Amino acid sequence: MPPLILALDFGGTKHTAAITYPGERNWQAHKRAFSPANADASTDIEIMTSLAEELLAGKQPAAIGVSFGGPVDFKTGTVYLSHHVTAWENIPLQQLLEMEFGVPVSVDNDANVAALGEHRFGIGQGYESLMYITVSTGVGGGLILNGKPWRGANGMAGEIGHTAIDPNGPLWFGRRGCVERLASGPFIAQQAREWLQAKPEQGQILRNLVNGNLEAITAEVVSQAAAEGDELALQALEKAAWALGVGIGNSANLINPQLFILGGGVAKAGEIFWRMLRKFARETAMPEVDFEIVYAALGDDAPLWGAVALAENLI
Amino acid sequence: MPPLILALDFGGTKHTAAITYPGERNWQAHKRAFSPANADASTDIEIMTSLAEELLAGKQPAAIGVSFGGPVDFKTGTVYLSHHVTAWENIPLQQLLEMEFGVPVSVDNDANVAALGEHRFGIGQGYESLMYITVSTGVGGGLILNGKPWRGANGMAGEIGHTAIDPNGPLWFGRRGCVERLASGPFIAQQAREWLQAKPEQGQILRNLVNGNLEAITAEVVSQAAAEGDELALQALEKAAWALGVGIGNSANLINPQLFILGGGVAKAGEIFWRMLRKFARETAMPEVDFEIVYAALGDDAPLWGAVALAENLI
Repeated sequence: MPPLILALDFGGTKHTAAITYPGERNWQAHKRAFSPANADASTDIEIMTSLAEELLAGKQPAAIGVSFGGPVDFKTGTVYLSHHVTAWENIPLQQLLEMEFGVPVSVDNDANVAALGEHRFGIGQGYESLMYITVSTGVGGGLILNGKPWRGANGMAGEIGHTAIDPNGPLWFGRRGCVERLASGPFIAQQAREWLQAKPEQGQILRNLVNGNLEAITAEVVSQAAAEGDELALQALEKAAWALGVGIGNSANLINPQLFILGGGVAKAGEIFWRMLRKFARETAMPEVDFEIVYAALGDDAPLWGAVALAENLI
Repeated sequence: MPPLILALDFGGTKHTAAITYPGERNWQAHKRAFSPANADASTDIEIMTSLAEELLAGKQPAAIGVSFGGPVDFKTGTVYLSHHVTAWENIPLQQLLEMEFGVPVSVDNDANVAALGEHRFGIGQGYESLMYITVSTGVGGGLILNGKPWRGANGMAGEIGHTAIDPNGPLWFGRRGCVERLASGPFIAQQAREWLQAKPEQGQILRNLVNGNLEAITAEVVSQAAAEGDELALQALEKAAWALGVGIGNSANLINPQLFILGGGVAKAGEIFWRMLRKFARETAMPEVDFEIVYAALGDDAPLWGAVALAENLI
C-alpha cells in the first residue's frame, strides 16, 4: 500500500478533512463539518479529530498536512491566533496532532498553504515565483519564490490585506486604509449599504435584488447588481477593485513575482471586477514589471491540496 | 598572485572604480570621476573604462562586478534605462564590458548590489533575510531572501520607492502618492520650500540657515533645522518619515524580512527622523511581524562592495 496522506483545513466557520495518496489528484474520502456558534480552539480540534478518525477508519496516515485560517509560526507549527474563533492564542497545533496521531505533522496558515497547493497541483505549476491572494471575509496572501514557499522571518510574509494604501481610509486593526478593510467581502457589502442609505434615489437594481432588505446585501449580490448595470453597486465594486489592484501593483513592485493567483469569494465577482482590478494593478506597477493575474484553479480546495503538499514534503 | 577583482559603480552623476582581492576589506586602489553635464551612455562608459584602465595599469582582472544606478535585467546584464543620463535604454552593459576587458562581468542595479554588499560585508552579515533601502535623490530597494538576492521575475523586486500609499498624494511616474515622491531628498526640500513660501511667519531657523535663499534648501538643511527645533522643518521631515515608515511597514507585512538597512543621504537625517521613521513603520506592520531598521554599515560604498561580491560569485 502507498503511504496515506491526511489533509486538514481549519477554516473560520467550517472544517474539512480529506485523505489521498501521493500522486493522486482525487480524494479517497472527504468530510466537512461546521463549527458551533460558541466554538473555541478545543471544540475545533475535537471536531477535526473526529472527522479525521471517521475517514481513516483505523488506518494510520504516513503524514498530516494542516491549513489553518490565521497566522501560524511554521517553524514550530504553533498558531499565533484566530481572528474568528477564541482561545487559539499560542496553541501548539502541530505538537497536539503529532501526539494524537503519532505521525509527523506540518501546519501553516491557509494563504501560504493555498499558494503551495496552486503551485504543486494548480494553475501555478511550473512557475518559479507567484503570489496567491484570497479575498473573502479577509484578505490573505502567500508567496512562492524560487519555486518554494517564502514565509518570512515570522511566518507572516504575504500579508497584503494589512498593507496600508490610504492614510484617509477607515481604521482597521490599528491601520488606516488597508487593503482588507477596503476590498474584503463584508466591507464591499457594507459600503454598498451605506451608500444606499445615504442616496435613496440610487441603486434600484441592487435594492430589488434583496427586496429592499439592505441587511441581506452581500458582496455576491453587489457583483450581481453591478453586472446588471447598477451604478451604485459598480462603484462599490470599483472601490474594492481599486484597493486590491493597488495592493497587487505594490506587491508587484516590491516582490516582482511572475504570477498573481486570486481565490476566495470576491474573486468570483465577475468580468467587470476583473477588468477594473487588472487596470488598477497595471497602473500601479512599474512598466518594466510584468505579471498576470489569474483565477485559482483549485478554488476553495486550494488550502486542502496545499495541505497534501505539506504532508508530501514530510514523507 | 590572487585573482584581481574590478568593481564599478555607475552613479547618476559620479562614477567610481576600485580594485581589490577576494577576502580583502580594503581597496587596493580607488578612483572617482564626475559625469559631464551633457553625459550620455557612451560618455559614461568611456569615463568608466578609462578609470578602470588607470587602476589596472595593464593587469588583467579575474572578474568584474558592476553596480548601475537604474533598472537592470540581471539575467543578461542589460540596462533598461537610466533616470539621470540619456541613451541608456537597452544598453547591453555586461556584454560591452566583457568585450572590452575579456573577462566575466556581472551587472545589477545599485540597490540590489548594495543589499548584497551589506549582506556579504556589512551590517547584514549572517542574516537570512533583509531589505536594503537607499533614500537619496530617489528611493530604491534590494532584497536578500534565504541568504541570496531575490531579484524578481524582471529583476525589478525591491522597488519600494514606487509603491503607492496615498491616493490623494502628488503624481509621480504615473502613480499618486508613491514613497519616492514623498520621502526622497529633493521632495523633502521642495515641501519645506513650499511651506516657507505659504507661511511667511514660520520656519525662521530654516530660513536663517540658508540666509533667506530658499533655493539653497536641501534635505540636509531641513534635517539640521529640525534638530535645532524648527517646527516647519520638523513637519517636512515627519511627512517623509511617515511615507518611508508606511512603505517599510507594508514591506514588512508583505515580505517579513528580519532586517531593514537604510542607506543614502536621507538616512543621515538624524535622531528625530529615525525615531519618527521607526514609529510609523512599527504602527504599519502587524504586531506579529518583527524587524529592525538599522543604518547601512558600508555607507556610500555599499554598491561598490556589492559589486565585489558579484565579481566573487563569478570566480
